[in-house]
Amino acid sequence: TDSHIDVSGTHDQVVQIETNIDDQTAESLGYAMDKLLANGALDAFFIPIQMKKNRPGTKLTLLVKKQDQDKLTELVFKYTTAKGVRYIPYERTIMQRSFEKITYKNMPVRIKIASFKAVKRITPEYEDCKEIADKFDLSLDTVYDNIKKRYQG
Amino acid sequence: TDSHIDVSGTHDQVVQIETNIDDQTAESLGYAMDKLLANGALDAFFIPIQMKKNRPGTKLTLLVKKQDQDKLTELVFKYTTAKGVRYIPYERTIMQRSFEKITYKNMPVRIKIASFKAVKRITPEYEDCKEIADKFDLSLDTVYDNIKKRYQG
Amino acid sequence: TDSHIDVSGTHDQVVQIETNIDDQTAESLGYAMDKLLANGALDAFFIPIQMKKNRPGTKLTLLVKKQDQDKLTELVFKYTTAKGVRYIPYERTIMQRSFEKITYKNMPVRIKIASFKAVKRITPEYEDCKEIADKFDLSLDTVYDNIKKRYQG
Amino acid sequence: TDSHIDVSGTHDQVVQIETNIDDQTAESLGYAMDKLLANGALDAFFIPIQMKKNRPGTKLTLLVKKQDQDKLTELVFKYTTAKGVRYIPYERTIMQRSFEKITYKNMPVRIKIASFKAVKRITPEYEDCKEIADKFDLSLDTVYDNIKKRYQG
Amino acid sequence: TDSHIDVSGTHDQVVQIETNIDDQTAESLGYAMDKLLANGALDAFFIPIQMKKNRPGTKLTLLVKKQDQDKLTELVFKYTTAKGVRYIPYERTIMQRSFEKITYKNMPVRIKIASFKAVKRITPEYEDCKEIADKFDLSLDTVYDNIKKRYQG
Amino acid sequence: TDSHIDVSGTHDQVVQIETNIDDQTAESLGYAMDKLLANGALDAFFIPIQMKKNRPGTKLTLLVKKQDQDKLTELVFKYTTAKGVRYIPYERTIMQRSFEKITYKNMPVRIKIASFKAVKRITPEYEDCKEIADKFDLSLDTVYDNIKKRYQG
Ligand code: NI
Ligand code: NI
Ligand code: NI
Ligand code: NI
Ligand code: NI
Ligand code: NI
Ligand code: NI
Ligand code: NI
Ligand code: NI
Ligand code: NI
Ligand code: NI
Ligand code: NI
Repeated sequence: TDSHIDVSGTHDQVVQIETNIDDQTAESLGYAMDKLLANGALDAFFIPIQMKKNRPGTKLTLLVKKQDQDKLTELVFKYTTAKGVRYIPYERTIMQRSFEKITYKNMPVRIKIASFKAVKRITPEYEDCKEIADKFDLSLDTVYDNIKKRYQG
Repeated sequence: TDSHIDVSGTHDQVVQIETNIDDQTAESLGYAMDKLLANGALDAFFIPIQMKKNRPGTKLTLLVKKQDQDKLTELVFKYTTAKGVRYIPYERTIMQRSFEKITYKNMPVRIKIASFKAVKRITPEYEDCKEIADKFDLSLDTVYDNIKKRYQG
Repeated sequence: TDSHIDVSGTHDQVVQIETNIDDQTAESLGYAMDKLLANGALDAFFIPIQMKKNRPGTKLTLLVKKQDQDKLTELVFKYTTAKGVRYIPYERTIMQRSFEKITYKNMPVRIKIASFKAVKRITPEYEDCKEIADKFDLSLDTVYDNIKKRYQG
Repeated sequence: TDSHIDVSGTHDQVVQIETNIDDQTAESLGYAMDKLLANGALDAFFIPIQMKKNRPGTKLTLLVKKQDQDKLTELVFKYTTAKGVRYIPYERTIMQRSFEKITYKNMPVRIKIASFKAVKRITPEYEDCKEIADKFDLSLDTVYDNIKKRYQG
Repeated sequence: TDSHIDVSGTHDQVVQIETNIDDQTAESLGYAMDKLLANGALDAFFIPIQMKKNRPGTKLTLLVKKQDQDKLTELVFKYTTAKGVRYIPYERTIMQRSFEKITYKNMPVRIKIASFKAVKRITPEYEDCKEIADKFDLSLDTVYDNIKKRYQG
Repeated sequence: TDSHIDVSGTHDQVVQIETNIDDQTAESLGYAMDKLLANGALDAFFIPIQMKKNRPGTKLTLLVKKQDQDKLTELVFKYTTAKGVRYIPYERTIMQRSFEKITYKNMPVRIKIASFKAVKRITPEYEDCKEIADKFDLSLDTVYDNIKKRYQG
């Protein structure tokens, strides 16, 4: 649900890498997430899981391009305490995307237009809105709402 | 774990549709779940996930019949803010099911009998029990327990 | 929701001890839970929490008797990596409880009868049912259902 | 974050009722939530908790008016398997609220205006938007966005 | 992240068995987890899921060897209330493992050495450390830290 | 469990601010967490909650100093969509803390020494270790383990 995937077609393939972790701290897992995202993972997220022996474990999931599977496997072994990882190859359907640019408060804002058959959705880019929210000391929702009001797509 | 799947054999195939959502409200996701179930999803559920940038996201999962994959993909794009979905084809093993009918407090109750080799399980149907619980102002467990006591399967 | 609280009145007071943990592994937290329960905590449970810096942390909660607050505080510091704990004093309402004994498959089973005004609930004791399930190789639900059918309370 | 609290002042008091549940099914808990909300609970929600003996339990929390504490306690005992409940008295700060009405697609929509010092927020009422979304076969976000665009508050 | 998988190569295949459960209690699910692990599941864990009709359900996941798929399917039907299970075949990459033995406080401790290309990780075995922690009344982290300090691998 | 609380005594008081959110996106909540932590909240975390109408909501919890309660209340109303917040005053017990400094790879590392009666725990500071891990391209656990081995407290 993000612009972190730069495809424009409507079908592609990714690999999901999963591992359950019960012997790494949350501090260290937070650090690992940043490193994995900075090194080519398309997405990374945690799910809380309840493991044997009353362990409040964490399932790490990565989405990666097929050609990055080996590299990211090695990085999971480097940054986490996982001793094995498992793979699911995914087929995906992606909405078609295009971008427009507007200005708001003299700041540039990209507008992402995602479409699929009859469905069309408009989303101001998070990073642009965040910059405006930071600069003018506004909540993110205020910036989003105002930009959506202005956009005449 | 429900009667929402009307197969009676012991093997079938379904497709799991997944997407991670970080830009839709819980109110709107609750609405989407109802719509997706009302339009052919066999099952729909949410898993709380921890996404990058401290986002408390939600993973939406649907189980759908293979022939409904395209239709449900479009409905996910319509009712949620997902910009892509991914698929896992599942093989399943399903217990064999049959139904009997009894009456309890003059109300009809279907009894689901699920069996697989040596295992046999008896479950009064939720919707029937709910109707009785509503009418007689009882907890669901009271109704279930009483019906199980009466049933001489 | 258990027999682990041996009061019979309808009101009492307990203290809830809480702490958020981001620097201890799930393995070690599972070990800690066992130790805290074995040393006087009335109840102990984990809630998955999403902490700053993308940390998939864990909130540990204990319910303890007021007179055990200091002892359990020290044990939390011993078995977890918490560097501080916080307290909420709770007032509680407890259902009145009594016990009966029946036999099932020649094994003794305590039946807990919990009542509060018009509400009355019957629960076979977990540990007794577990012993029967283990011995006769049954699921817990089978044992529960059969005992509930037999009990003529 | 809802119109379910009909106060207009900025301070009030509520009581939180909590209980951990490990011996009731999810089906039955879903039924209980509906009943508790229909009988005076201001809010009700579930938190997944990890209890002793590898139990994936559920913490039920209710917010109730002080004068409803006894009634809701009894209803918790009626509709759930809890054998005890605990209380926290809360003080709250509530934004001041007023309502305006607009029409959209010839349907009435209440607009909630919540304000607190310099903060002012505009929210179309969920139930009104849901009715429009249902009638015109739209997603909830589409209705919200369009109404926000029209509102000249 | 455990020694529960006795392969030493770097690739293998496992089957994931999944089912969503909404009609079994947490007590009974905790019992089921123990039985499934004792009967050949390589791993078993719970994920809290939010199902239709406000049900706080539980997703049970097992990892099993391909040759154990049928046996574990039957055991899921025996010990849980699932009426169907679904499968994902996984390919895995496993770190290479070897073991050394040291003594600490006159107790034997196996040290697991996991390696993959440039990555090498050292982990004292949980069960050995637990025995020492129990015997000398120490936290698990204290035992781990001391053993790691002593080990000159 | 962090150095984010600069008290050195063993008792203090904080206020917990809570609110349930069902009408704000995860993106916007992630932004809000950063702002609240940057503006004086001692701690901030999210708990996934299951709200009425199938909403996968989020409970935001802040720990704040008593004198910051009003300011943080206003900031919650500014950065989130909450229309009310509730308070619990907490008493806490805090371990006594002191710091030592060592160098590792020519980088300074603060060692936090937390003690309470017979319990003493040693923790290298996260931010220092993170800087070293970043600079030398190591996992956080590698840095922690090496520093713990070197420290002769
Ligand atoms: Ni995204
Ligand atoms: Ni996004
Ligand atoms: Ni079901
Ligand atoms: Ni069902
Ligand atoms: Ni209990
Ligand atoms: Ni119990
Ligand atoms: Ni609300
Ligand atoms: Ni609301
Ligand atoms: Ni493991
Ligand atoms: Ni392990
Ligand atoms: Ni901390
Ligand atoms: Ni910390």
